[in-house]
Amino acid sequence: MNNKTNKNELSIGIDIGGTNTVFGLVNIHGVCISQDKIKTSDFPNVQDFVNFVSLKIKKLISQIPSSYIKGMGIGAPNGNFYSGTIDFAPNLKWNGVTPLVKLFSKHFEIPIILTNDANAAAMGEHIYGAAKGIDDFVMVTLGTGLGSGFIVKGEMVYGHDGFAGELGHTIIEINGRPCGCGRNGCLETYASATGIVRTAKELIEAGYQTSLSSLSEITSKSISEAAKRGDEISLKVFDMTAEKLGFALANTVAITSPKLIVLFGGLAQSRDLIVKPTQEYMEHYLLDIYKNKVKIVTSQLKGSHAAILGASSLVW
Amino acid sequence: MNNKTNKNELSIGIDIGGTNTVFGLVNIHGVCISQDKIKTSDFPNVQDFVNFVSLKIKKLISQIPSSYIKGMGIGAPNGNFYSGTIDFAPNLKWNGVTPLVKLFSKHFEIPIILTNDANAAAMGEHIYGAAKGIDDFVMVTLGTGLGSGFIVKGEMVYGHDGFAGELGHTIIEINGRPCGCGRNGCLETYASATGIVRTAKELIEAGYQTSLSSLSEITSKSISEAAKRGDEISLKVFDMTAEKLGFALANTVAITSPKLIVLFGGLAQSRDLIVKPTQEYMEHYLLDIYKNKVKIVTSQLKGSHAAILGASSLVW
Repeated sequence: MNNKTNKNELSIGIDIGGTNTVFGLVNIHGVCISQDKIKTSDFPNVQDFVNFVSLKIKKLISQIPSSYIKGMGIGAPNGNFYSGTIDFAPNLKWNGVTPLVKLFSKHFEIPIILTNDANAAAMGEHIYGAAKGIDDFVMVTLGTGLGSGFIVKGEMVYGHDGFAGELGHTIIEINGRPCGCGRNGCLETYASATGIVRTAKELIEAGYQTSLSSLSEITSKSISEAAKRGDEISLKVFDMTAEKLGFALANTVAITSPKLIVLFGGLAQSRDLIVKPTQEYMEHYLLDIYKNKVKIVTSQLKGSHAAILGASSLVW
Repeated sequence: MNNKTNKNELSIGIDIGGTNTVFGLVNIHGVCISQDKIKTSDFPNVQDFVNFVSLKIKKLISQIPSSYIKGMGIGAPNGNFYSGTIDFAPNLKWNGVTPLVKLFSKHFEIPIILTNDANAAAMGEHIYGAAKGIDDFVMVTLGTGLGSGFIVKGEMVYGHDGFAGELGHTIIEINGRPCGCGRNGCLETYASATGIVRTAKELIEAGYQTSLSSLSEITSKSISEAAKRGDEISLKVFDMTAEKLGFALANTVAITSPKLIVLFGGLAQSRDLIVKPTQEYMEHYLLDIYKNKVKIVTSQLKGSHAAILGASSLVW
């Protein structure tokens, strides 16, 4: 947001997920004034997808002077800022390299910016949320996997190829858990919704007693609920997850020295169960010069609008 | 170097080490036109040190029009860019926080920039050396310890407090080797001149046969020489060191996605013994999207001028 923005300006935000795609109109204060959603998985052909989303968005903006619409921001798994393409996203049906920005450009003559979902979340937090006014921070999204976005001196770190910020695929244990990426011991195999379920199942299979239901029904949500009830094994699972995450974050701090780390996503909503022990473990593993300087907080972009806000923020 | 520089402009570079301080005058082409050095350890009082260095520098510039001198760049262990101070440097005799920029400002009315030695080396490589024209790279200095400097979009990453880039103190092995920082398993306990000696001694103590001389005489240089002669244990030591470094670099690439990694310092001078296997191990540990895209090279700033060039480059 610079001085040239005016209060009528709006930005279109689109968040593409493996299951749903949500989109909406956001003003410069981070208020989502209208939104809609469709099922991503209903569109095996990306052209059909872009046509349909464009139609829906044109409906949303039909009553708005076109000069108010400043641009479109898109967050998507494996979205590449430089090329405007989605590259080999494992959770989407569109194979190979998808030229998303090019396709949307046929429908809208406005600036269109694409990046991956974690980077979009980071920008959203920077423009509207917990990292407002903070120029050096790290965004960590704890979903099915673990995504991350790095902001240095107020700017997104994209790296030379647009693929920076894969904290979830830093290896924290050589010969550790097999990861979907084909390697072993990646952070996201421990610190994510699926990682925490794996930890719980490992403990139960090792014979620990728990109030959790049968193995097949365990989810990160049920572990969180059980932990809140005081279930010992669930508390232990959170503690183990926090140690892995805190350790990885301590190493991360030694690279970019952020002032803040923002956690986002389902697992982050467990709040004190994850934030507090992660902060403690991070402090334990931190080099002296960084101790008691880096705060871990949860996202301030709430509910169903969060992803749209993140994507829309790319425009400002 | 911007368009406003002219060919007569000069920059003063000072590199402060635990043993020696070297300083000189450098032109915009990276040519060191004059230089001198003193023993840092001869000056337990920093005021005396600054007075003496200033006197020596004034001699170097006595024949040069003052308008040609554009500034002074200083590289020092624990040098903080933001505060202009050296903070608690373990290898220097000046305790606590030393206001170095303030002290030099009493002698010179020019811009004075201080940063740590690894950051200065990174800028030197960016302005004059192997990373010329490359906007996303990582500098790794392999000396007694392991220092690092991160350049993102052509700019130094300082972090919120000026302490970014402590790659040597990322932990690569929980409960690993004790480190001077008080923790365990830091990268620099394995990948540094002292680290490689520790590895050699561990192997010899474990009973491996070697052509290396007695334990007390082993240095990183003697290991390098023995490896070049084909000494098996020395070759194994390099291989083990390269694996640790390659592993840590693979994790680093996942954060900032650099195009290049530049190795500098004594250990880097072993060239193929360290660069080639480090590149191979890094590729092994890299996430698919980064494979075969990041090159490891050695510094192009040669010999005794390298540190002065690095410090002087902070000015441009």
